[in-house]
Order: sequence, then C-alpha cells, then structure tokens
Amino acid sequence: MTVKKNPLLIHRREHAEALLEKYDNFLFDCDGVIWLDEKIIEGVKDTLEFLKKNGKKFAFVTNNSSKSRQEYLAKFSSLGIQGVTKDHIFPTCYAAVQALESDLQVPKKSKIWVLGDSGIEDELEEAGYIPVGGTDARLNQAFRADHEFLTVDPEVQAVVVGSTKEFNYMRIASTLQYLLWKNKTIPFIGCNIDRSYPGPNGLILPAGGSVVNYMQYTADRDFINVGKPSKVFLEAILAKNGFDRSRTLMVGDTLYTDIKFGNDGQLGEGCGSLLVLTGGTTPEYLHQFLQNPNHYDEGESMIPSYVIRSLGDFVDIIQS
Amino acid sequence: MTVKKNPLLIHRREHAEALLEKYDNFLFDCDGVIWLDEKIIEGVKDTLEFLKKNGKKFAFVTNNSSKSRQEYLAKFSSLGIQGVTKDHIFPTCYAAVQALESDLQVPKKSKIWVLGDSGIEDELEEAGYIPVGGTDARLNQAFRADHEFLTVDPEVQAVVVGSTKEFNYMRIASTLQYLLWKNKTIPFIGCNIDRSYPGPNGLILPAGGSVVNYMQYTADRDFINVGKPSKVFLEAILAKNGFDRSRTLMVGDTLYTDIKFGNDGQLGEGCGSLLVLTGGTTPEYLHQFLQNPNHYDEGESMIPSYVIRSLGDFVDIIQS
Repeated sequence: MTVKKNPLLIHRREHAEALLEKYDNFLFDCDGVIWLDEKIIEGVKDTLEFLKKNGKKFAFVTNNSSKSRQEYLAKFSSLGIQGVTKDHIFPTCYAAVQALESDLQVPKKSKIWVLGDSGIEDELEEAGYIPVGGTDARLNQAFRADHEFLTVDPEVQAVVVGSTKEFNYMRIASTLQYLLWKNKTIPFIGCNIDRSYPGPNGLILPAGGSVVNYMQYTADRDFINVGKPSKVFLEAILAKNGFDRSRTLMVGDTLYTDIKFGNDGQLGEGCGSLLVLTGGTTPEYLHQFLQNPNHYDEGESMIPSYVIRSLGDFVDIIQS
Repeated sequence: MTVKKNPLLIHRREHAEALLEKYDNFLFDCDGVIWLDEKIIEGVKDTLEFLKKNGKKFAFVTNNSSKSRQEYLAKFSSLGIQGVTKDHIFPTCYAAVQALESDLQVPKKSKIWVLGDSGIEDELEEAGYIPVGGTDARLNQAFRADHEFLTVDPEVQAVVVGSTKEFNYMRIASTLQYLLWKNKTIPFIGCNIDRSYPGPNGLILPAGGSVVNYMQYTADRDFINVGKPSKVFLEAILAKNGFDRSRTLMVGDTLYTDIKFGNDGQLGEGCGSLLVLTGGTTPEYLHQFLQNPNHYDEGESMIPSYVIRSLGDFVDIIQS
C-alpha cells in the first residue's frame, strides 16, 4: 500500500486546483460531510454546484441504512441539492440487498429477517425479497417469552442488521433466535461498523455499528460487513458508475470507515481520500492519530491523502 | 496454573463423597444452576438441604444485576429454599457498589448514572449513593435530541451498566454522553460480560454483557468488569464469608464466567470448579470445547475440575 504519511491540508487555491486536475469522480459520505442531521453544511451546496459545472461526477455513499435510496432522493431535494438521481445514491440498506443478490445468491421471494429501519425493508421489497421483523409494530411490545416472533419462521433465509433508534429487547431477542438457528449458519449481514455519529445539537449519538456489534456479541458469531470500508462495496460502486479508480476521490469524516474505504481501493492506481473535519473527527483526534497511526488497528490504512476543514470551504478556496 | 486437563464427571457415589470430603464451601451461580427463570431445577432443593445438613456453607454469586440482594431473598424464599440470608447473596449490582466504595473510593452521596434495572438503584441507595437514569420513566420516551437527560449532570461521578430488558435508544444515547464526557475519564463499571442466558421456554436470550459491550463499542472505551470472572469479586466473597480458598468449590453453568472464576482463584491452593449442564453449556459444546481448549481465548482457564449433569442429581448420586 502506498498511502501518503502526511495528508496534504487543502487551504490554498493551488491545492484545490490540483485536486480538480487529478480527480473526475467524487464519492461523498453524507452525515458530517454534506449535512448534519437535517441541516446542510454551509457552503456545501455551492461546492457541489461548482464541481458539477466543472464536469465532475458524484456518488453518495452512506453507511446509514435507515433510509432507502428513494427517501434519500427526497432529502437531497428538500435540502436544495439539485440533479441527484437514485443511481447516485448508495446507502447500506441497498448494499445489503446487493450482497444478498450477488454474493450470497439468496433466491428472490425469500423471507429476510430485519433488525433495522424501513430503508432496509423498502430496498428488500424493491428487489423482490420479503422483509419480516423490522418495523413490525408487534415488535414494539414489552418482552414476552411466548411472543410469536420468538419462534423462528422456517422460511427466513438471512438476517440483515442496521441502524435503528427503535431497537428494544423484543427485537433483539427475536433476532438472536435467527442468528443461533441452524447452528449459526444462516447468513448475518451487518450494514455498518460505525460506533457513533454527529447528531443534532452537537450531540454524539450511537450509530448502527453498535447495534450490529450487540448482535455479534450476544450471538457470538461474525457478520458480513456490507458498508464502508468493504472493498466489495467500493468495487460495486465504481463498476455501476463506470468510475476510473485512479481518478476517484472518497470524501468523508470518519477515518476507520470513509478514509480506509478510499485507501483500501488503492490497488496500484487507487482512489484518493479526503477527510473533512465537520463530522466525527475533531482536529485534536486527527493530530493524535497522525502522531502514531500504528497505535491504531490497521492505522496505516486510515491516513487520509488530503484534509480540508469543510467540504463547503472548497469553493471559497478555489475562488480565492 | 494447574488446571486438570480432563474434568471428572460426577456420576458415582464415590465421586460425590470425594467432593464432600474435599470442599466445605460452595459458591453457586443461580440462573441455569439453581433455577431456570422462575422455576427451581428438579432436585436442587434436596441437594442444598443435604449439603447444609452436612455442615457445608454457601454463597450465591450471580452476574445478573437486575435484582438487589433483598429481591433475591424473596426469590429464594418463594422457591422454597430455606435458610438463605442477605449475606449469602452476591449479585453484580452489589459488586458494582463494592467497587465504587472500595476500589474507586467514590464519595458517598455522589450521583451515579445507571443503565440497568432497579437492583443497581436499590443497592446504590442502600450504600448511600444517589442513582440517576436507570428506571426513570422519563427515559421510556422516544428519542428526542432536546431531552433533558442528554445534557450531562455535572454531579455524576461514575457510570454503572448492567442487565436490563428496558434499554432503548433514549437510555443508550444519554449513557453515551456520560461515557464520552471529560475525555472519557469518568469510571465505567460493567456488571457482567455474559453474552446470553437460558430463559423460559428453552429460549436463549441476550444477557447484560451484551448491553455493556454495546456501550463499550459505541463509546470506544474499556470498562471495569465487576462480575465473574473478576478476581477482585472472588477475593471479596471469600473474605466476607471467611471461606478458605482451597476448600471452596464454584458451581456454575458457563465456562467463560463461572468456571474461569473458580479456576482463576487457583493461586497455588485454589478453588475447584464444577460445571452443570442445566444452563448455558450443552454437552455438545462442552465436548467440542474440550477437544481443543486452546482454540478459545484463555481456554485453559475455562476447563472445569468437575462436571455433573445437574446440581439436582448430586443428592441422588450420593444416596445411590
């Protein structure tokens, strides 16, 4: 791997111009990069419009599995970001369905047990699968050992776990029954490994990876991570968009997901990675990390090629 | 460590007599050993009465933190187990309070944030601490970013996390605020590391260790495990009861908690460990484990000295 040891801080016009020269395609994380909760980050709309005017291509790659591509379309539109189509959006609810179809070859019309939000259910249905569990209101009840969902449905072929604020003991106990079933052999897909995310009011909030990790721990078995930094996910996105790897830049706010995702794509002529500081990574944490990346698990693979304070600054820097 | 490589299966009278000869004191796990959910395991009452008649001493050591010692007293009584006093009972809600008092020296009248059931709150109050969070009904609400409990109370001095079926996103998000607060320096006590436990109707259900693990993962920091197999917990129990280590037998159903707990006490002249098969460990799993203990993390320390099908069989075997 040929990761730069010191990321270049993008703060002068010539830096921004060099990026424009080097990359045609931009993969954007969303939470902490494009928006924080329901608010677009200042300047981001102008930066995206500038890049588009300069012929750059986009894809939005989020580890959040709560919303379907259709719901993300509505969010982009409500935030005033124009020209995004469903084909530009890659949430991990969609990645989970891709994994069921392509890698695991689970037959269509199979039932899939879901611990997660409607995004997963919607993407499963669109692909011809039958979601069970998930947002089913019967799972909102207090735990009862004789609850119908504690008996496994023998038609279920796989389990998908992702972000949700609706988890409770009833949902977790019923999901566990599937993960233990058949000597723990039914496929277990996790939509992400994110520990936390920047929420509203400056809060750091628990993310979907914590739910996946809970299920992994209680069932004592591994899962297939379909989210960033999965290489399978990156390959699928590059292929679907026809992006040349060596002319693609991953932009994100998290070292162990986004930046590793971009860097791990460096098979010879690889992607670049640009860290923004508007989300989960503070300048202090970045400084501490860069002092000794080898203290971190797979630390070398998490060193960004570039750093910018905010994606929203890009347009100001290049026009300065 | 001098753990026997092959546990002795207790199934003949002379085995049981040798145990009676070798041990004066018995530490019993509860779930899966004494009872399953609300039902006492067949023969256990007779075995306990037999041991008592023969001058043996008991302590009950459970990683479950949901009930206080007072509540356990009521449970023993309702199941018809006589002669148990509060001093015989060591649930991890009590161990957590001991850790606050002795090891961490947190001053009395401090506020302690709780993610867990009333057992923790009751033991904290009995010791003169002020529990906050916990079963507070305001935390039953759906998540709201402006919820009062998302702002840390500056008087809180430590966090205790244990078993609960009442966890929801509101509770977890507010607990995270304390774990991240002050650069993650406020003490974080976990009541156990149990992945699952044998519930009613033959169900395997998520246990408190999964909640602790969730909080550890989302906050990305370690915790102090006060439950089995903590050596500090064992020393405290032996000291409080005046039990001679070399004449004490730990009886439990789980290798990585109970059996390791007994075995790790083998500092020269150590405790023995007796595995029962009425709880979380199946005969198949035990067989697989014993084939190659080194495949398991700290596997050598989880090999029981003895195995018996059920604690309830003991009295039948010795009277056969």
